[in-house]
Parts: sequence; C-alpha cells; structure tokens
Amino acid sequence: MHCIAIACLASVLWFGIGYSIAFTEGNSFIGGLDRVFLLGIDRETLSGTLPESVFAMFQMTFAVITPALMVGAFVERIKFGSVMLISGLWLIVVYAPVTHWVWGGGWLAEMGVIDFAGGIVVHVTAGVSALVIAIMLGSRKGFPEKTLPPHAPWMVMVGASLLWVGWFGFNAGSAVAADQNAGMAMLVTHLSAATASIVWLVIEKIKYGKPSLVGLVTGTIAGLATITPASGSVGPLGGVVLGLAGGIICYFAVDLVRHKMKIDDSLDVLAVHGVGGATGTLLVAFLAGFRDGGTGLAVGMTPSSQFMVQLIGIVSVGVFSAIATVIIVLITKALIGLRVSDDEEIEELDFSHHGETAYRL
Amino acid sequence: MHCIAIACLASVLWFGIGYSIAFTEGNSFIGGLDRVFLLGIDRETLSGTLPESVFAMFQMTFAVITPALMVGAFVERIKFGSVMLISGLWLIVVYAPVTHWVWGGGWLAEMGVIDFAGGIVVHVTAGVSALVIAIMLGSRKGFPEKTLPPHAPWMVMVGASLLWVGWFGFNAGSAVAADQNAGMAMLVTHLSAATASIVWLVIEKIKYGKPSLVGLVTGTIAGLATITPASGSVGPLGGVVLGLAGGIICYFAVDLVRHKMKIDDSLDVLAVHGVGGATGTLLVAFLAGFRDGGTGLAVGMTPSSQFMVQLIGIVSVGVFSAIATVIIVLITKALIGLRVSDDEEIEELDFSHHGETAYRL
Amino acid sequence: MHCIAIACLASVLWFGIGYSIAFTEGNSFIGGLDRVFLLGIDRETLSGTLPESVFAMFQMTFAVITPALMVGAFVERIKFGSVMLISGLWLIVVYAPVTHWVWGGGWLAEMGVIDFAGGIVVHVTAGVSALVIAIMLGSRKGFPEKTLPPHAPWMVMVGASLLWVGWFGFNAGSAVAADQNAGMAMLVTHLSAATASIVWLVIEKIKYGKPSLVGLVTGTIAGLATITPASGSVGPLGGVVLGLAGGIICYFAVDLVRHKMKIDDSLDVLAVHGVGGATGTLLVAFLAGFRDGGTGLAVGMTPSSQFMVQLIGIVSVGVFSAIATVIIVLITKALIGLRVSDDEEIEELDFSHHGETAYRL
Repeated sequence: MHCIAIACLASVLWFGIGYSIAFTEGNSFIGGLDRVFLLGIDRETLSGTLPESVFAMFQMTFAVITPALMVGAFVERIKFGSVMLISGLWLIVVYAPVTHWVWGGGWLAEMGVIDFAGGIVVHVTAGVSALVIAIMLGSRKGFPEKTLPPHAPWMVMVGASLLWVGWFGFNAGSAVAADQNAGMAMLVTHLSAATASIVWLVIEKIKYGKPSLVGLVTGTIAGLATITPASGSVGPLGGVVLGLAGGIICYFAVDLVRHKMKIDDSLDVLAVHGVGGATGTLLVAFLAGFRDGGTGLAVGMTPSSQFMVQLIGIVSVGVFSAIATVIIVLITKALIGLRVSDDEEIEELDFSHHGETAYRL
Repeated sequence: MHCIAIACLASVLWFGIGYSIAFTEGNSFIGGLDRVFLLGIDRETLSGTLPESVFAMFQMTFAVITPALMVGAFVERIKFGSVMLISGLWLIVVYAPVTHWVWGGGWLAEMGVIDFAGGIVVHVTAGVSALVIAIMLGSRKGFPEKTLPPHAPWMVMVGASLLWVGWFGFNAGSAVAADQNAGMAMLVTHLSAATASIVWLVIEKIKYGKPSLVGLVTGTIAGLATITPASGSVGPLGGVVLGLAGGIICYFAVDLVRHKMKIDDSLDVLAVHGVGGATGTLLVAFLAGFRDGGTGLAVGMTPSSQFMVQLIGIVSVGVFSAIATVIIVLITKALIGLRVSDDEEIEELDFSHHGETAYRL
Repeated sequence: MHCIAIACLASVLWFGIGYSIAFTEGNSFIGGLDRVFLLGIDRETLSGTLPESVFAMFQMTFAVITPALMVGAFVERIKFGSVMLISGLWLIVVYAPVTHWVWGGGWLAEMGVIDFAGGIVVHVTAGVSALVIAIMLGSRKGFPEKTLPPHAPWMVMVGASLLWVGWFGFNAGSAVAADQNAGMAMLVTHLSAATASIVWLVIEKIKYGKPSLVGLVTGTIAGLATITPASGSVGPLGGVVLGLAGGIICYFAVDLVRHKMKIDDSLDVLAVHGVGGATGTLLVAFLAGFRDGGTGLAVGMTPSSQFMVQLIGIVSVGVFSAIATVIIVLITKALIGLRVSDDEEIEELDFSHHGETAYRL
C-alpha cells in the first residue's frame, strides 16, 4: 500500500511541480517554474531528440521509485498519513533539487560528476534519508530478536526479479536512445546483478552452510544499485568487477547497520541501495577507462580528479539529504505524528490502517 | 481459468474470423471475409506503415481483453462451458462488428467519433454486456451480505499493477508508431491512473477513515478506463482532469450498482470500466482543445457537435451490446444452461469444475 | 532458488567463456576464445547490424533459460550444489557447442538446418538431458502415487503467463530486428500457444470431465516449444497447425513418460519441451511452404530433403546431449554426490538446504 500510494502521489507531484524544479533552467541549485503542471509540453516539444512527453514520463519513473524504495526502512510501525506527507515533501525538497544538481545542469553536473542512472540521485539520497527516518522513528517492537522475517521468500524473489527487469529500463533507458550505449548499459547491469547475487550466495554458504533465496536476491539488488551510476561508462568486465565489489561491500554494510549499530533499517535501504550506489559512484572513476568497452573519462579528467568529484557529489548530497530529511520528519511529527500506537503495531498496519488482511480465507 | 481460457479462445477466433469482420472493407456495419484465417497476410503486407501481422496481433490483444474483463461480473456462479460459449459468440456478434463501426471505417468512424484506445469499443461494450449477464445470471448466494471479499488484497494490487503497465500497450500502442503521439498517450494515461487512485483513497479516507488497497487500485482501473478514449487527444492537464472525473464518477457508480440497485456485478465491470469509458468518451469533446498538449478537434467539429457524436456512439453501442448479449445468453441457457448447481457453488468452482484448489498444502 | 541461482551462474559463465565458444569462428564443432570475458566487445562492435553487446545479451537469455528449464525434471530431491555444478558444466560442454553447431556457423548450419529460436538448441538439448538426469537421480519418494501436485495452480498459471510473454522475446527477438519477420514470429508464436492450450483443455474435458488450469497452461508451453524452431518460417495458419500437433503429441508424450515409463520427469521437461521442440523442428519442413505467410524453404531444398536435415539435427544433438549429460552427472556424483538424504527430502529442500520456508506465518 505504501509503495503504490507513493507511486500515485509522486506521479501527480512530478506533474505539478517536481519536473519543473528538476529540469527547467533556473540556476545551479534549483530549476524554475516553466513546466508547472507540465504546461508547455505539447506534441512537438523535444528534449534533445526525444519527445519531451517521453522524457518527462521516463524521469517520472525515477521520481516514483526513489521515495518508494525508502519505505523499506520504516515498515510495520509508521502511520500511513506520515508516509504520504514525508514522501511528498521529500520529493519536492530533496529529490527534485538534487536531480537538478546532477541531471538538470546544476552545480554537480558543471563539475563533471558521473551518475548515469542514479547512484547519487536515487540511491544515496534514498539510502541516507531512509536511515535518518528509521533512526528517528525507532525500531519495530522486539527488534532485532523477535521481528518477523519476510512473509514469503518466493514473493521476495518474484519482486526482485521484476525489479531486475525494470532496472534495465532505468539504466539502459538513461541512454535516452535505443542505441549501442543503451545495449552496453543493459549488458553491464545484468552482469553486475548476476555477479553480486553469486557473491552473496557464496558468502552465506561459507558463513552459514545454507545459502538463502532472500540473501541471493539481496545480492541482486546490491549489484544493481552498484552498477547504476557506472552503467553508462564501463564495459562487461567492469560490470563484473562492480558486481563483485558491490556484493561484498553491501553484505558487510548490512551486517554493520543491523547487527553492530542495531538500527532497524528493515529492508537494508542504506546498506544495499545507499552503500551500493556510493560504491559504484566512486569506482566508476577507475573502471571507466578499462579497455573492455568502457567509455573513458571526459577530457581533462584523471581517475583521481574524477574520484574527488564523485566523492564531493556523494558527501554533499548525503549531508543535504540527511539535514533536509530531519527537518521534514520533525515537521511531520509536529503536524500528524509518526508512529502508530502499540496496539496498532501489534494488530498490524494492514488491518489497523487499511481494514484489510493479506489473505482473507 | 476463465481469463486465460478466454484469452486462448479469443485468439483463435480472432485468427479465424474476428479480425476479418472487424478490419476488412465490407460495408459500414460489418467487414468482409478477406482475412479469414488471416489468409492474405504475408511478410510484406502492410496496414498503414505497419506490418499487417503486427497490426492483427495488436488488435488481437483488445479482442482478448474485452471478453476477459467481463468475467468480473459473473464470477463464482457460472458454468465454465457457458463462459466459453458466451465469450466466443460475443466476440463475433458484438465485439468484432462494433470494432468495425469505430476502428474499421464503419458508420461511427464516418461520423467522426473519437475513441483512441477503446472507451466505446472495449469498455462500453464490456461494461453493458457484463451487467446484462450479471442480471440474467443472478447474484451469488448470500449477496451482498455474505459474499467473500477478494481473497488477497496484495494479489489484487499486483494484478492491477500489471494491468496498469499493460494498459500503456493499449493506449500508447494505439498511436501505431513509436512517436510523440504514443509518448503523450503514455504520459496522460499514467497521470489519469495516478490521479484517480488518489481520488479513491481520499474518498475512502473521508468516508471510512481507512483507505484500502483494493479501493486504491479500483481507482487506478477507473482512471485507466476513463482516459482510454481520450488518450490520443488530450495533454497532461487533461489527463489529470479525466483522472479526477473518472475517480469520482466511478466511485459513486460502484455504490449505485452494488448498494442501491443491488446487482452482483462482482468486480464492478459496468461501474468502473463501462462508466469510466463513457465518461472519457464524453469529456474528450471538451478536453481535446485544452492548450496543454491536446490535439484539438477535427476541422468542422465544435465541442458540442463532438459531444453529440460521442453520445450517439455510447448509446448506440450500449443498446446494441445489451440486446445482442440478451440473445446470446438466452441461446447459451437453452443449449447448456448458465448457472452451476447450489452444491457446486458452495463447493466452489475451482474444485467442482476444474478439480483443483487455489492452494494444495 | 534453483532457477534464479542458475540464471546468475549461467550469465557469468556466458560472459566468461560460453559466448566465445558458441559464437566466435573456430571450426565446425566449436568456437574459439576471441570473446572470453566478452573482451573485444566495445561500443562500436557490431554483430550484423546489431550492437554486439545487445546480441551477446540476447543470446545470454537463451543460455540462462535452457539449463533453468531442466530443473523441472529433478525437483525436490537433488542437492543444491549438484544442480549448480551440473548446470555450469552442461552450459559449457553441451549448450555452447550445440549453439555453435546450429547458430554459430557450425556443421548443422552448413547443412541448412532450420531452427529459428531454439527447437533443437534449447528444447531438444534440455529435454533429453533432463530425462537423463531424472533417470540417474531416481524418482521422488512415493512417486507416482504420493507425490504432491503443484502447490498452487494459480502460481503455475501466472508463471506460465509470464513465460508466454517472455517467449515473444525469444521468438520475435530471433529476427534480430524490429521488422516484419519479428512481427510474424510473434503472431505465429501466440497462435500456436493459444491453440495448444485449447487442445489440452479439450482432451482433459473429454477424458476427465474437468479441464484443469495446470493442464491448460501445460498446453500453452507445449504450443510455445513446438512453434519455436518454426517461428521464422511459417505463417498464421501454420502456427495454428503446429499448435494442434504440438498439443496432441505432447499430451500423449506426458502420459507415456509419466504413466507408462514411470519416470519422474517431474514437470514433464522431455515430454513438453523436448517432444514439442522436436515436433516443430520436423514439421517446419512441410509447413514453411504454406501459402499463408510462410517463407518457403531455401533454394535447392525440398520438404523431404529438409526433413532429413532436421531429423539429423535432432538425433545427433539428442545423442550428444544424452552422452555428455551422463558423463557430467557421473562426475558430479563422484565429486559431491547427487541426491539429498531421506531426512532432507522429507523435511523439504527449502528448509534443509536454504533455511527458509515458502511462507513464514
């Protein structure tokens, strides 16, 4: 319910104001109001060589997925209205401006940051903000000993598989053309995901003897998040290297957040999306030049200068996202509160907030 | 089982005779037999600029979905053989001729009716016919007090989500080209769906305090049905307006059919598909001219003259569908009966008709 | 778990060595090492008119699905590690070389064999090998009397439906262009699937009185496998004929393997995929020339000479697959064993091998 309601809300807000903030000219920090209600987009308007209707719709898919993936950090204990309010404010205050910085010609774009399909724009923003919300909201009752595992591992797998395929849309689509760059992005995305899945499987096999389905597909997501910023710059071997790195680093990041820091980021949004996205954002500086189909860096850039730009991108966006999210959460708390009552949490939100149950028998 | 069996049957009938009736020249009321068994379509045959194989296949998807969506009105109480016979006859007697009238160069096309992707052809035909069948068949035992809610709201959501994506195929595909009209159709379709979903959520929140997942996605379908006839003519703001209108009108139509008229149209086929499709068909007369990316009306048409043509389309197709469906149901009843026995209904059709159960544990 | 882990493993092996063996020049029996780790594929490299990144990725989907579909023959009793080892070896020793023979310019291609989208390459290799493994592994405990039916027929249907759509990717995609041949392949694929589904439904209705959902979609798969090798050569009527033939022949093949030979090929991999693929491979010799959109045979070929080539293809690939699979299974057995213990089988593999259960309540 959270995800599909956010999808609807984000779509309407993107139409209303988000796209305009992100993609009209404005200044280096924020766009203008030329495309409010998408006015000014008609059937002949182009964005590059693409009809602008298609570009606005494509970018809308990012604006939908980013707040929706944050939901994983605060499931089973947050008020439905609070999710909606936080998501809506966050889209306008965090997502749209950062998108302008990176993809809309803003200051990070001017510095030459590489973020092909959202390592910074999607995964760092969402990962950091999700962690902030999880901390401010507090853990589920009984966390970590008594919290329930996913209801059905096969559903997790089916969802991850749909996401895997959908991710081709994000990464190959970011070539904004059906060409060889889109093809290479699709190939390296797939290889990174497959590699990271196997990494996770092997680690679980070594540590526990029993590799799990939920673990394997968590690896899939880690590999996808990691390749995302680099998917326009590396070749096949680079894709596999990123899958290896993302799989290993995210695995231990999950362990760190969940077991060492004891934060109830319930679906590992920071550790998988945030850390994966940041890993790929940094490594692309060194992997883009691989002589295996990578693009190389822009003229005048060296791996170390690019690395610094990438690092600046991650840190500045991370800090901005964290601060803005704190404010948004405080506003939400003041207006309508954050957390459901104990009774409602025990009763479970499906029933207490939506009057439904997963199965009616 | 009903839906996938209808998909197979409709595909074969479309191949055998349906496509020919709908899309070959014939007269203003019915096509000819030039494409029986799709003979005459080879690898060089074109329909416009499209290979005719692709056009015939694309149109087949409409011929599959239309009888399949009627199933929602008469679940859990009709004989499997009767569903098959009714669907097959209906495809040939109702769907294929009406398609000829609107999309095959028939009399409604000659009048200048606007129905980009099936508001009349799909949703009015199916909605009206579904209601007729629901009435002739009678309600489920215990309706409305004791009938079961959907087995699993999450399945309803997953199904609706797949349908939402599939709907882009219908609406954007109706541009029969990968161009700016297809792009705009996709965008407005999405905006209408998202808007109507939120409308439904808000109404349920106001009325009951607990917005439901099943409610939200019912709104999605209402928004999709409503934009369908207009998806080639309006711009983004028009899409949102249609989503608002469709969400509100369909919500109260559900209430009217179910609670006031006490008809067991179990999945609200008339109230959501039929009423939504009709709403969009009428409103397009006024919204096509919005200066936000709409196409405007054809030369010589005014909003009010277009509105009259649209109304004639809805009423004539609705009346024709109703009469033909009554005859088809009477024939089916005479040949093989309609309704399962009381024992079979209590035992449930999965088991009594198909020897299966939803889960085997 | 088996399927998604194989998907990941096969993707990485395809990247590492498989694609190179299958599609680089080499000799008539095996390709060379020019594309190991996909090195040499950059953004400008073409395969025909297609970016080679796209071709390698497209072919990867076949390399993923083929070992994954074999899993159906040996579910619920094989060690997870053995599945991985067998699948990996099989991909390199059986799949990649046979692909070279048929699609990579090898000896069967030189003879003029027709296999548009994998009747031999995918379905004969997988069907024969799956049967070999099922025999060497032995049946599930209690087979055939006490083995469980599929857990949820609706899941089988949803999976088959996704597969049906995915199959358009294989068959239409095998035109390696978005053109009229792709369009015709899509159309005939759909018609064959729909026809075979109805065939299965009708046979079950006649034999048992209750047509089942699982039966219907088994027919779907039979129709899809049967049209696959012929999907580039026949027209719509040919597609329906192949669906009829595939539906009937596969139905009785299932009966033969399961009830007469009492082999626990649990999901009928040989009887549906193998027999279907072989049926289409043979019949294409006679159906390609149908004057309904078929392509005709190559210059110098007659239906009977083509039939002989097709038969040689099936028999040689079938024998090679069987022998190689026996060796692979013996090696696997020697290294890590094949079958789980009785306790693990009773406990079920989800739990005993992966520490998970289908549902956690």
